[in-house]
Amino acid sequence: MARIVMKFGGTSVADLDRIRNVAARVKAQLDAGDEVAVVVSAMAGTTNQLVDWCQKLSSLFDAREYDAVVATGEQVTAGLVAIALQNLGVDARSWMGWQIAVETDGQHGKARIDAIESEELLSRMGQGQTPVVAGFQGIGPDNRITTLGRGGSDTSAVALAAALGADRCDIYTDVDGVYTTDPRIVPQARKLARITYEEMLELASVGAKVLQTRSVELAMKERVRVQVRSSFSDAPGTMVVDEDEVVEQEIVAGIAYSRDEAKITVRRVPDRPGIAAAIFVPLAEAHINVDMIVQNVAEDGTTDMTFTVGKADFARANAVLEQARERIGFVEITTDQNVAKLSVVGVGMRSHAGVAGTMFHTLAERGINIQVISTSEIKVSVLVAAEYTELAVRALHTAYDLDA
Amino acid sequence: MARIVMKFGGTSVADLDRIRNVAARVKAQLDAGDEVAVVVSAMAGTTNQLVDWCQKLSSLFDAREYDAVVATGEQVTAGLVAIALQNLGVDARSWMGWQIAVETDGQHGKARIDAIESEELLSRMGQGQTPVVAGFQGIGPDNRITTLGRGGSDTSAVALAAALGADRCDIYTDVDGVYTTDPRIVPQARKLARITYEEMLELASVGAKVLQTRSVELAMKERVRVQVRSSFSDAPGTMVVDEDEVVEQEIVAGIAYSRDEAKITVRRVPDRPGIAAAIFVPLAEAHINVDMIVQNVAEDGTTDMTFTVGKADFARANAVLEQARERIGFVEITTDQNVAKLSVVGVGMRSHAGVAGTMFHTLAERGINIQVISTSEIKVSVLVAAEYTELAVRALHTAYDLDA
Repeated sequence: MARIVMKFGGTSVADLDRIRNVAARVKAQLDAGDEVAVVVSAMAGTTNQLVDWCQKLSSLFDAREYDAVVATGEQVTAGLVAIALQNLGVDARSWMGWQIAVETDGQHGKARIDAIESEELLSRMGQGQTPVVAGFQGIGPDNRITTLGRGGSDTSAVALAAALGADRCDIYTDVDGVYTTDPRIVPQARKLARITYEEMLELASVGAKVLQTRSVELAMKERVRVQVRSSFSDAPGTMVVDEDEVVEQEIVAGIAYSRDEAKITVRRVPDRPGIAAAIFVPLAEAHINVDMIVQNVAEDGTTDMTFTVGKADFARANAVLEQARERIGFVEITTDQNVAKLSVVGVGMRSHAGVAGTMFHTLAERGINIQVISTSEIKVSVLVAAEYTELAVRALHTAYDLDA
Repeated sequence: MARIVMKFGGTSVADLDRIRNVAARVKAQLDAGDEVAVVVSAMAGTTNQLVDWCQKLSSLFDAREYDAVVATGEQVTAGLVAIALQNLGVDARSWMGWQIAVETDGQHGKARIDAIESEELLSRMGQGQTPVVAGFQGIGPDNRITTLGRGGSDTSAVALAAALGADRCDIYTDVDGVYTTDPRIVPQARKLARITYEEMLELASVGAKVLQTRSVELAMKERVRVQVRSSFSDAPGTMVVDEDEVVEQEIVAGIAYSRDEAKITVRRVPDRPGIAAAIFVPLAEAHINVDMIVQNVAEDGTTDMTFTVGKADFARANAVLEQARERIGFVEITTDQNVAKLSVVGVGMRSHAGVAGTMFHTLAERGINIQVISTSEIKVSVLVAAEYTELAVRALHTAYDLDA
């Protein structure tokens, strides 16, 4: 007997037939002798509708009211899934965040879970009851509903798995696992049987949006074994686990890409101490995430500073820089939104030289110019012109022997 | 300065424009110097959708899960109205039933309010905050969400008005008041400036569905002055008040009709003590409400028993009676679903003779046969063939001098 958290995303509960399918899957797991806690997202499309209403009523909507509104999506699904389970003879009941309670901080709209009271749930599970928990939501110190930010139900599921001491957290979604790269671009992409938390984090943060980044960070911290699998097939998915569990580590786990970033170059800034702070502190104060940063060697006492920001923040980033023009002392800003970030990810590269070299060589062979390079322990990322995205991903996938 | 509860029904919050309109109305009331608490229903259509999902997943759905699902409709509206109010500069916040708390009994799906904790709301209203309360919902002794039954937001509003000691409870709806009869049938129908609780109750229970019956009972018990008015016009509505407040009482306040009932006659039952109980106890046990009951004088040791039930309960009532056939000892059951109940309502008839006589005479003049008669202190109801409904209502409206 295992204790398993089963989390179902929005497409898995998009209509009544799919909710019945979810109930059948949970019943099968129970019939296999396991203890199960279910976590559900809102029906696909619901959250977008609710967010849209809030935004249309006020561009500066109160995040506390936003939370009360959007949390209803998961509340509906939790009740409906409980009814569908009862209809199959399962003793199920729904739990809202405030009932459990899932205690969060007071950052409405993007709250973080502080603690989950698990005693009552564990006691009921021991008596054969299956909790169906509304994901994405908790309760803040002000006794008001909080939500965890988009994709937060993944984090709810992992946090619940940690609180319940679950053997596994199965994330059911509309893809059947984590692939070596996007199968829409590379048909030979392979589903990975296992991937480490670190690799999953790097893949998630560079655009392979299978799991919310925070859920992976939490799983890594709490050592929760996460399985990404499809609600629509019985095939095993991808296990996201600790590095120790991955026996035969490939050097490179996968190739990710993102076309969501824009490049900004601040040209001919004075080459003196404090100049980086003059540029990046105002951006940070405006809550703009900066990703790749490159500073060229100075010539004639001036230098160029290049970095990337999310396209959603692009206009705001430019405005912030213009406001700080005098303090920074730059001559001009040049920008490029037609860029793609390509990343090669793998924990194996810690102990293997030549991974970056293979990347640069492969791209050069195809005549693809590298604009910016940035590296971490387990990742090499480059910025190239967006039009080369598919060509580059395919070439890299082959170069690292990832083709099926 | 007055303290006013403003309640907005589903059609009044059906879309974002109407929600903005609601916010503007509340702001105007605040600008007039009044203290306001707002109560809202779900957006029109939402509750039906949610109920439909529950029913489709299981015909025997768990009422506790049903409550968790359907209560979300009012939660969404409360948050959106709070946002719309804030957008007009009003310090507003939403309150769910469990946050206030609106304490109810444990009868999920049709709970009754036991108490409303009003201190926090009153304190905040004193500081200038406007609460926006999700109607229709409360919290049961099991710490789970309860709902009050269809139309329950009216009851929420009246109960809140009582708890807050409000001067008035304004029920905003899609009609602009209570009329002497249905204006779709009688164009000369007049809007009543005032009506007593008792009259409103009789009108509501016979099919003039402006207010939920329980809300009127509660208003009468707690002496809450209720105003029924339109969200879409500034015209004053109808005040539902204590009899003392109605100075110049008309003998007849209005004419109501209902085509929602069916007639059942149990023929040739033995005329002996206990026979009425043998018929009506099984129906009561099956939670079937019986309305008009007539027993004819016995002939040859047998009698006929005629009564009406709601059409929704008609098939079930017949089944219950067939099961009890041996115990009752009847010869046959005859039924008629093509009937209409007409009611003349007015507290003035307590002190005026001849009201019933006018009704019978008026119908006889039009050649309309009366099948069943039932009377209360302030009401005379008759059952006639459904095809005469409009003719009869018009004739009675004229006969009692109600035409504008």
